[in-house]
Amino acid sequence: MPSHAEPGILYIVGTGPGTPDQMTLDAVRAIQSADYVIGNASYLTPLSDLVAGKNVIRSGMGKEVERAQQAVELARDHVVAMVSGGDPGVYGMASIVLEVVEKCGVAIDVRVIPGVTAANAAASRVGSPLSGDFCVISLSDLLTPMPEIERRLNAAFSMGVPVVLYNPKSRGRPHNLGRALEIAVQYHGPGTPVAVVKNAYRDGEQVMVTTLGDMGDHIDDVDMHSTVIIGGNESRLFRSGSHVKGIITPRGYHRKYVY
Amino acid sequence: MPSHAEPGILYIVGTGPGTPDQMTLDAVRAIQSADYVIGNASYLTPLSDLVAGKNVIRSGMGKEVERAQQAVELARDHVVAMVSGGDPGVYGMASIVLEVVEKCGVAIDVRVIPGVTAANAAASRVGSPLSGDFCVISLSDLLTPMPEIERRLNAAFSMGVPVVLYNPKSRGRPHNLGRALEIAVQYHGPGTPVAVVKNAYRDGEQVMVTTLGDMGDHIDDVDMHSTVIIGGNESRLFRSGSHVKGIITPRGYHRKYVY
Repeated sequence: MPSHAEPGILYIVGTGPGTPDQMTLDAVRAIQSADYVIGNASYLTPLSDLVAGKNVIRSGMGKEVERAQQAVELARDHVVAMVSGGDPGVYGMASIVLEVVEKCGVAIDVRVIPGVTAANAAASRVGSPLSGDFCVISLSDLLTPMPEIERRLNAAFSMGVPVVLYNPKSRGRPHNLGRALEIAVQYHGPGTPVAVVKNAYRDGEQVMVTTLGDMGDHIDDVDMHSTVIIGGNESRLFRSGSHVKGIITPRGYHRKYVY
Repeated sequence: MPSHAEPGILYIVGTGPGTPDQMTLDAVRAIQSADYVIGNASYLTPLSDLVAGKNVIRSGMGKEVERAQQAVELARDHVVAMVSGGDPGVYGMASIVLEVVEKCGVAIDVRVIPGVTAANAAASRVGSPLSGDFCVISLSDLLTPMPEIERRLNAAFSMGVPVVLYNPKSRGRPHNLGRALEIAVQYHGPGTPVAVVKNAYRDGEQVMVTTLGDMGDHIDDVDMHSTVIIGGNESRLFRSGSHVKGIITPRGYHRKYVY
């Protein structure tokens, strides 16, 4: 068990959507340099080669506060990598770790290593559905009350830009996605493209491209490992022959150039 | 000049905020596999070691349509990597390339390789300012009219979530940032944290954390290489002693747990 005379380092490492192939080189190196690697078990499993031989602490879903406290404690005199799926600053571990560090008043070096967040990973699997301005909203009402989520959804859809839904569904909240779609149709027509990307860049990846009008038939296909992208005013399906290939939200070059 | 009997591949590669250290392994491999690498010169310069010995085509800012057409033409029978800063699906090259492919009706294999977008790169340098729901809005009125940008800003700030401003300023549009701040203060108090991150992960990186009330004094510090993050209702500065370390937007654990 290595230890360090100098104060430790706590890396909060974004592991991207899946395997080390979608991690940055900096993220890989941070984990390689660590004495301890701590994180939700589901994010550690795809990294098994990378963390082999290290002190690995697998934590459970919903144990974020305890996990942050344990990481901060260890980082007093060790190099610790806290792994966080996607980007650690988006529904990840960065905020709670920093809150714990602030509360404890410990002088440890905390470094956030960004990663590819689910919005960008999912988008890359269905063409270019975001392209420009967009909003990201989580449908989990564990930490944010549902009326507040609904208020945000209304404002987001009123912008006319694509909206990415994180945590669209789980066993504990099966109806929030239906509610979000009810709000979406108040602002967008039935032809508005919708993408569901399940397990992006992981085993069991599934991609579905449909429309707001047909999405009601597909709600059961969405699970907690899915990201849902609802297009904006300018988003459209793109095809190769009659086959739907994905979604394009044009950036507006067609308004300035002939091509 | 290698060529391929089989149809080509066109990778649209997100190079992240700066150097290959912030690129994913998949992105590095896509470039390594390419016969041709094409992109804006400013994104190619930090990759000089990676593209050494390849056919490198450096294109200029504002030449996106020509660049996409050239890449698609080359990809008919070569492996081509189109590099795009940050994530190619966010103010990047993915949409225009797909539009050109659709228009030409060519049967080439287009693969979008996601990267760390500026919102996440900038956020990682100032703590955890996003943490949950957020909006991304570009202040460039080259392709979107300013009244439409202002409409989106109003809706975004009304959500109460952090807003990330891309392309906050350039010589051609020095006043859009001032206008965005005027809109922000209609929804948020003067103590709302604001971060300006210039050249994140690149030479000349500069980070400034201030408040909406004081931001007026710092408009001249913002340039076209900056990303501006305006906090939401729950965002706050965090300090170590009297020193401002950054911004935390709590995810809401404090409402559920004692820590």
